[in-house]
Amino acid sequence: MGLRRVLEPAGVLPQAAWRLDASPEIAADEVRIAVQRLNLDAASFRQLAEKHGGDGAKVRAEVAEIIETRGKMHNPVTGSGGMLIGVVEAVGSESPLGLKSGDRVATLVSLTLTPLKITDGLAKWDGRSEQIPTEGTAILFGRSVVGVLPDDLEPELALAVYDVCGAPALTDRVVREYDGSVTVAVLGGAGKSGSLSLAAARLAGARTVAVVRDENEAATVRGLADAIAIADARDPVAVAEAVGTPVTITVVCVDVPGCEHGAILATEAGGTVIFFSMATSFPAAALGAEGLAADVTMIIGNGYLPGHAEFAVDLVRRVPAVRQLFESRVAGH
Amino acid sequence: MGLRRVLEPAGVLPQAAWRLDASPEIAADEVRIAVQRLNLDAASFRQLAEKHGGDGAKVRAEVAEIIETRGKMHNPVTGSGGMLIGVVEAVGSESPLGLKSGDRVATLVSLTLTPLKITDGLAKWDGRSEQIPTEGTAILFGRSVVGVLPDDLEPELALAVYDVCGAPALTDRVVREYDGSVTVAVLGGAGKSGSLSLAAARLAGARTVAVVRDENEAATVRGLADAIAIADARDPVAVAEAVGTPVTITVVCVDVPGCEHGAILATEAGGTVIFFSMATSFPAAALGAEGLAADVTMIIGNGYLPGHAEFAVDLVRRVPAVRQLFESRVAGH
Repeated sequence: MGLRRVLEPAGVLPQAAWRLDASPEIAADEVRIAVQRLNLDAASFRQLAEKHGGDGAKVRAEVAEIIETRGKMHNPVTGSGGMLIGVVEAVGSESPLGLKSGDRVATLVSLTLTPLKITDGLAKWDGRSEQIPTEGTAILFGRSVVGVLPDDLEPELALAVYDVCGAPALTDRVVREYDGSVTVAVLGGAGKSGSLSLAAARLAGARTVAVVRDENEAATVRGLADAIAIADARDPVAVAEAVGTPVTITVVCVDVPGCEHGAILATEAGGTVIFFSMATSFPAAALGAEGLAADVTMIIGNGYLPGHAEFAVDLVRRVPAVRQLFESRVAGH
Repeated sequence: MGLRRVLEPAGVLPQAAWRLDASPEIAADEVRIAVQRLNLDAASFRQLAEKHGGDGAKVRAEVAEIIETRGKMHNPVTGSGGMLIGVVEAVGSESPLGLKSGDRVATLVSLTLTPLKITDGLAKWDGRSEQIPTEGTAILFGRSVVGVLPDDLEPELALAVYDVCGAPALTDRVVREYDGSVTVAVLGGAGKSGSLSLAAARLAGARTVAVVRDENEAATVRGLADAIAIADARDPVAVAEAVGTPVTITVVCVDVPGCEHGAILATEAGGTVIFFSMATSFPAAALGAEGLAADVTMIIGNGYLPGHAEFAVDLVRRVPAVRQLFESRVAGH
């Protein structure tokens, strides 16, 4: 679990630590990765970009400062991280991960718990996109989760898919837990996790509603959802009106705060809300449902399910609209 | 839903609002309560008491200031509120709540969304306990949830039970969703929501483990759980070791931050963690499970389920150890 990498406070797991030891020497159960590219969590990148008014140089300086100070890319405001890709450089004699030097891999655990050392000062990044081409080292623990990169997808594309691969797998599971006709609304359906969740819900047999911000986003999801509703996800009444008849399951994939109440209002009694946005407020969700007397099950989106990476990559292969959305998002940066 | 009471920001629900209009004049679908007693959420009271080093006068001044500024008791740091009891004073002609003037009631929605005006400056409260005897007015909306106080329980006791009544009802529901032999660990088993959750889990057929802080707390829960484990809930490795074989369901009722990872580690693959503490961090839970490759369902404790208040009161009546724990807690203040 990487306990030996925790510098402060003592006794917590690496994710909860303020500071990790990111030194490149590995223990017997560790693996060292030569880092090639980081993918910042969307909520984290948005917070940094807004804080610095879109000034890429300042965003870059702050990301470098966070990594240097904390020994990991763990945004202290949003609490979120991201993922990385790279090449296996050294494998400890007792590592259970089954990797060998030279494997091209993506980490499937958050950067918030991955010891990370950058050696190029992020010089190849302009601070204006979530993906950071860079150099340095990262450490995997015995209990880490890692995916070997697929041959048929560009590494940038695979990284973007892996970053959100928990969402479609969990959406699929929850849809299959309900009997009969299931309707799924996805707030932020035009985003990465949102489009994958829409595709997963439809393939699991649900009728799908994409809730998007404007006509531009609506054009992006055409063909991906059975219905499209335009609303500001932070406006609970607008969301409920746009969705219409309450749905069985609502999936929240909008990376801005304040989307809890619209999701709850849009969901029928006995239904489920799955929160995938790292901008979700625990008290706002808990007290919002209580205040609305809403008998809905609210799930914290877990970034890990067995087979989640393969499941998401398979969706990208099978659903051209999803692949197109990811390709344009990756190219757009 | 009380939208007309929202002063700022516009368009959000009362729970998300910074400031509510707490004026005592009611609209046709509203009800006015003459307030008798507030019960602060445990995480909120703890935060205030710690901030002021236990100085009751300063705690009282800050609570009065929050209510005056926000038009509701909504702790801006913890995001949590509490409940209140009082007597129905006026009922709007279109109120669907079925109340009449003179009914003694407890609100079952959070204080974070209840318009509240205090008229005695909290003068009867010493700032040293969660329960505040006071005077003033509170407003209920058409969609609020309210419980008439039971005849056979002291109002202070009923208020303490109602404050946490979502926890046992949801624990009961989740236990019954699993087939076969179910084990439930409750972090904070010696507290209000914890003891009720232990009782509910046992009555639903589960084997129960109370995880408590020390020998004093262990003595409190003797008879209430099938096993007792002593550990600091913020120390994930200690919690996992104290619980031993991972359990089917872990319920988190400890009102301090940092209990997410211990709960996840203590739960078996395919199991469920229910977070009832308002001190829960959404990112710490989501990224912690991912980082541990833990295939657990994580539920945000919803304070509302149909019949939750009656269910909790029934537990207090049926389980003497729970009643004793509540009585000593209420008397202790």
